[in-house]
Amino acid sequence: MKLSDIGEFGFIDRIAPLGLIRPAKVIRGIGDDCAVVRIDEDTCLLVTTDLLIERVHFYRSWGSANILGRKSLAVNISDIAACGGVPKDAFVSIGIPEDVEVEWLDDFYDGLAGLAREYGVNILGGDTTRSLADIVINVAITGVAGCNETLFRDTAKPGNILALTGPTGLSAAGCDLLLRGEAPPGHWVETLKAAHLNPRPHVKEGRFLAASHACTAAIDISDGLSSDLNHICTQSNVGALIFEDKLPIHDALLEAASYLGRDPLEWLLHGGEDYALLACLRPDAFPAVKASAAERGLQLIAIGVIEETPGMRLQRGDGHVEALTGGGWNHFRGRNGKFGGIEIRP
Amino acid sequence: MKLSDIGEFGFIDRIAPLGLIRPAKVIRGIGDDCAVVRIDEDTCLLVTTDLLIERVHFYRSWGSANILGRKSLAVNISDIAACGGVPKDAFVSIGIPEDVEVEWLDDFYDGLAGLAREYGVNILGGDTTRSLADIVINVAITGVAGCNETLFRDTAKPGNILALTGPTGLSAAGCDLLLRGEAPPGHWVETLKAAHLNPRPHVKEGRFLAASHACTAAIDISDGLSSDLNHICTQSNVGALIFEDKLPIHDALLEAASYLGRDPLEWLLHGGEDYALLACLRPDAFPAVKASAAERGLQLIAIGVIEETPGMRLQRGDGHVEALTGGGWNHFRGRNGKFGGIEIRP
Repeated sequence: MKLSDIGEFGFIDRIAPLGLIRPAKVIRGIGDDCAVVRIDEDTCLLVTTDLLIERVHFYRSWGSANILGRKSLAVNISDIAACGGVPKDAFVSIGIPEDVEVEWLDDFYDGLAGLAREYGVNILGGDTTRSLADIVINVAITGVAGCNETLFRDTAKPGNILALTGPTGLSAAGCDLLLRGEAPPGHWVETLKAAHLNPRPHVKEGRFLAASHACTAAIDISDGLSSDLNHICTQSNVGALIFEDKLPIHDALLEAASYLGRDPLEWLLHGGEDYALLACLRPDAFPAVKASAAERGLQLIAIGVIEETPGMRLQRGDGHVEALTGGGWNHFRGRNGKFGGIEIRP
Repeated sequence: MKLSDIGEFGFIDRIAPLGLIRPAKVIRGIGDDCAVVRIDEDTCLLVTTDLLIERVHFYRSWGSANILGRKSLAVNISDIAACGGVPKDAFVSIGIPEDVEVEWLDDFYDGLAGLAREYGVNILGGDTTRSLADIVINVAITGVAGCNETLFRDTAKPGNILALTGPTGLSAAGCDLLLRGEAPPGHWVETLKAAHLNPRPHVKEGRFLAASHACTAAIDISDGLSSDLNHICTQSNVGALIFEDKLPIHDALLEAASYLGRDPLEWLLHGGEDYALLACLRPDAFPAVKASAAERGLQLIAIGVIEETPGMRLQRGDGHVEALTGGGWNHFRGRNGKFGGIEIRP
């Protein structure tokens, strides 16, 4: 059987039951952004890991080793953020082909260590080895959170407000510009490329949401808004309605759509690797939480509601409601026919 | 600058100082088998990670996916064992080329989960992604140990007895047989191949040594006896004397040496991936600890002593003492001229 027959998430469903043989203290295993294990009565340890492979997740030519180092750590910190945690200690494995020079690696670690410093993260270990073909980077990271303040994907409730902590689609548009290889000069081009190459993990936002006690569920936008919302819906046994006219469209996205002749909504709904958080909040608490977020300089953009009826729906600007399918990234299948044909995860 | 100019350990020295920006609670960072972080007054969290890449660390044709799954976890559990810890939760990242079928992956995870069950280890997460060229496997694992019972490399003391918890060289001989591709039938061939493909992490031995409070330092034999002893010596600022006639030579090693026309001592001293532990013990306590180990069915084979004079020395059977250099595996440089020319880490 080919992996493409069952897809990445089918494969994860297949291996998930194997893992838990000693359930004591384990609050979450496979299937969320982080595993969560109780350390003591109040404190939980979060652990997550991400594998990046050259020509699948990045091309060396797209940017400096420095920002690749930053991103390698950022995508892991984002998983800790999605669970409401504080990132702590990182472990960096790297497989290095012969043509990579020490100077490249120095720059890579300089970027990685720079982001680590910004987020108070130690780099405490790892593994270095040769690779014959591609650069291979795996980062594993720990974090901590109060056990009563961890955020999960499967706890959304009907009536919850769906909110984003930042715009989506910029990273996918930036990726498409990078794949194209040429772009006109312009601040918007730099904005989109930077969104893809140098994403910011929303740790402050995750901590704020967790501490608000009004957030019932959260996820980070790594696969794409529609795909990650689909994870929340299927794992929480709920549905969702998104309002097109509430979706935050960044000016740079409009510029790119015009330049590339594309619908910006496709990037916004189905592009991945934005690393904003998608949160579900109790509707009674939402106004106060949003105001409190604003006071801290944090965004909380309501884009829809959680509903009892399964499935995802999009209400267009004219009031028409249509079905929304998870069109984000799925390894082994690629995007669900939306962008198709590119090698790179958006 | 080429990585081969500075070698794997030169590279690790280069990145190690970058990592520690928040030293509170961190007992060990980069440079030992595990990172060690204090959880509470008595308990420490151990974390380690290992990256295995096809054609560098293994060939798919050498054995079943099942034993590759076992080994991927075993090499990580061994690092926890070397620090005297109990392995807890594993996180498995895998990069999968298109020609790998779901059945191969099922067998891989079946083997990995089987070893996990044997050692009480949960598989709580990971990452699955495509790879264009090679299978890539990264396992990160946590463990726990009493903070006053963790074993390190840099705490050996002159006068300590050097002891192995099992024979060495079998894995490297097995690797050479696998590289050769043909071997006569014989139990010894199976023993050596199994030593390479399906190693046993010495968790019981590590726990026993840590609890004895007579063990001052330990390491697992992953790079090779001479290379791993060299880590202990340089990091502890001591030297060592090994007695040739105390080294445990397994019968299968003699068979392989005769068949391949090789000196078994080369495998024994410089071959890696045996995953026995090399421990340093207080000489006054050694006889009682060895007897106590034997009662539990554990081996503790005295092979030498730690000395004040830096450097490593080998006393041959005839009493002649010669310098011993770390000839084990060094990524980016290969073995130090001992075996040369093979692609695979032994």
